[in-house]
Amino acid sequence: MPPVNTFPLQLRFGDEDSYGHVNNVRFLQFLEDARVHLMSAPRPGGSFMDLIDPDHYTLVGRQEIEYRAPLNFSTRPAGVDVWITAVGGSSFDLGYAVRDSVEAEDSTTTAIAATTMVLVSRSTGRPVRLADAQKAMLLSWQGPAVPFRRSRGK
Amino acid sequence: MPPVNTFPLQLRFGDEDSYGHVNNVRFLQFLEDARVHLMSAPRPGGSFMDLIDPDHYTLVGRQEIEYRAPLNFSTRPAGVDVWITAVGGSSFDLGYAVRDSVEAEDSTTTAIAATTMVLVSRSTGRPVRLADAQKAMLLSWQGPAVPFRRSRGK
Amino acid sequence: MPPVNTFPLQLRFGDEDSYGHVNNVRFLQFLEDARVHLMSAPRPGGSFMDLIDPDHYTLVGRQEIEYRAPLNFSTRPAGVDVWITAVGGSSFDLGYAVRDSVEAEDSTTTAIAATTMVLVSRSTGRPVRLADAQKAMLLSWQGPAVPFRRSRGK
Amino acid sequence: MPPVNTFPLQLRFGDEDSYGHVNNVRFLQFLEDARVHLMSAPRPGGSFMDLIDPDHYTLVGRQEIEYRAPLNFSTRPAGVDVWITAVGGSSFDLGYAVRDSVEAEDSTTTAIAATTMVLVSRSTGRPVRLADAQKAMLLSWQGPAVPFRRSRGK
Repeated sequence: MPPVNTFPLQLRFGDEDSYGHVNNVRFLQFLEDARVHLMSAPRPGGSFMDLIDPDHYTLVGRQEIEYRAPLNFSTRPAGVDVWITAVGGSSFDLGYAVRDSVEAEDSTTTAIAATTMVLVSRSTGRPVRLADAQKAMLLSWQGPAVPFRRSRGK
Repeated sequence: MPPVNTFPLQLRFGDEDSYGHVNNVRFLQFLEDARVHLMSAPRPGGSFMDLIDPDHYTLVGRQEIEYRAPLNFSTRPAGVDVWITAVGGSSFDLGYAVRDSVEAEDSTTTAIAATTMVLVSRSTGRPVRLADAQKAMLLSWQGPAVPFRRSRGK
Repeated sequence: MPPVNTFPLQLRFGDEDSYGHVNNVRFLQFLEDARVHLMSAPRPGGSFMDLIDPDHYTLVGRQEIEYRAPLNFSTRPAGVDVWITAVGGSSFDLGYAVRDSVEAEDSTTTAIAATTMVLVSRSTGRPVRLADAQKAMLLSWQGPAVPFRRSRGK
Repeated sequence: MPPVNTFPLQLRFGDEDSYGHVNNVRFLQFLEDARVHLMSAPRPGGSFMDLIDPDHYTLVGRQEIEYRAPLNFSTRPAGVDVWITAVGGSSFDLGYAVRDSVEAEDSTTTAIAATTMVLVSRSTGRPVRLADAQKAMLLSWQGPAVPFRRSRGK
């Protein structure tokens, strides 16, 4: 499996706001669905979700997104590239690129983004350590750092 | 006017997802509405929006958010604090804190966030310089840097 | 308490779609939140929700909406009038009017709507009978039939 | 082309609410997207949207939906059947069935619905008559009446 997975994203008419472009908030929903599809994708031995203890779940700790170009509603699918950028003790980082077409070779990258997910215990509410099998699967999806251009702000 | 403005946010039942908490994506919508209310607030001489040339508009260049605690739907309003953290030539940065109650003195901060807005010309699609009156109004809302704890990811 | 309850609705910038009006789908969310606030409103002896057995819950069986006039985003609250139109054995019907302002005496009704809610058992998945105390509270909110103009379609 | 068109619907994780089912409001968004795809589908001589005068647009006049069974998020597509039930002078009615799988032969119908669309002039804000070519295309999609079970409420 290549380090980058591409998720074909069906846009919805209601994703656009009154400016006539896909609303900035919706991009975060696209990241969520690309992530959910990656975590649920069947793999030998089960999906990443299958590897998670019933008492554990993943929550979003942090997100960052840089908007590069407007995205417009189309009945043809957009595409979200998703990959892993880092694996820590109880957390991991994902990188994303939202492209205006999943098919076109000359698609435009409309946003790049990063998410930190944390594995947490329902019982204690505290972070728990990723198991070796989880780390191995995440590392099989590892790709480059997200090429953010803008500084972190002041 | 104090440097930090607080926006009373009416939560919606549908803001929660199947995990039983307000969905991570919705927090970005809360930032948007806090920002829109700040930019539209009546001021002597007009709102910030009134100061914008009809050929110009503001777009979101970048966002960053750190989730601190789960937020749950309530019929009582949450609160979003919003302020300015930096003013540049054609852009400005906002800081936010999303709190679980706009009224309670001991409210919990559920997320902190930052947005970079860019002033752009419709005609050219290029950034344009903020006018002095715009900068002055933005600076009247200036507050501290957003106290992000998590590093930018790798 | 008067037969009609009015819910002040905080609009969100993202409620508008690319036609520059509040999207037709969002009106249904406004009904949901007016309903949730009514069902959660404190009453002597508890809210309607407090009267519901932990094994029971209400689900939406049917909805109908007639759009009368466009609604636009505003930082001032819209208003949703909500009342009961009928109480049956295990279901009840609500009527709604979505108005463009909760305050203005000459507000415009932008939509009228009706919802049928059904009380259901989690254990059996089957409808269960409303208790007398539930019926009495619902009847205290009873108002007129929803004045739909359009026929049911062919 | 058969009288009923089926739209493969990509569900989103955020379509579910805290009850753990797709939220009742989202079903209306699914209708909107099925309708938009039908109206934009390429046909000999152009799509239905291509036949609309630039001064004209369609707006939603009325909607009705009956919920039949819960729908759950899945990474496999749901399906929306969409067809025309009636064509009038300046309006037309659509019927829909939302099924839990676009592929499975034994899919479950989770909701059925109807929408009345009205062709309106931007200049006058008044309804305008459908052209013969528009009526002909709509009639090519004609199917049965929507088999609503519940009465219209009181």
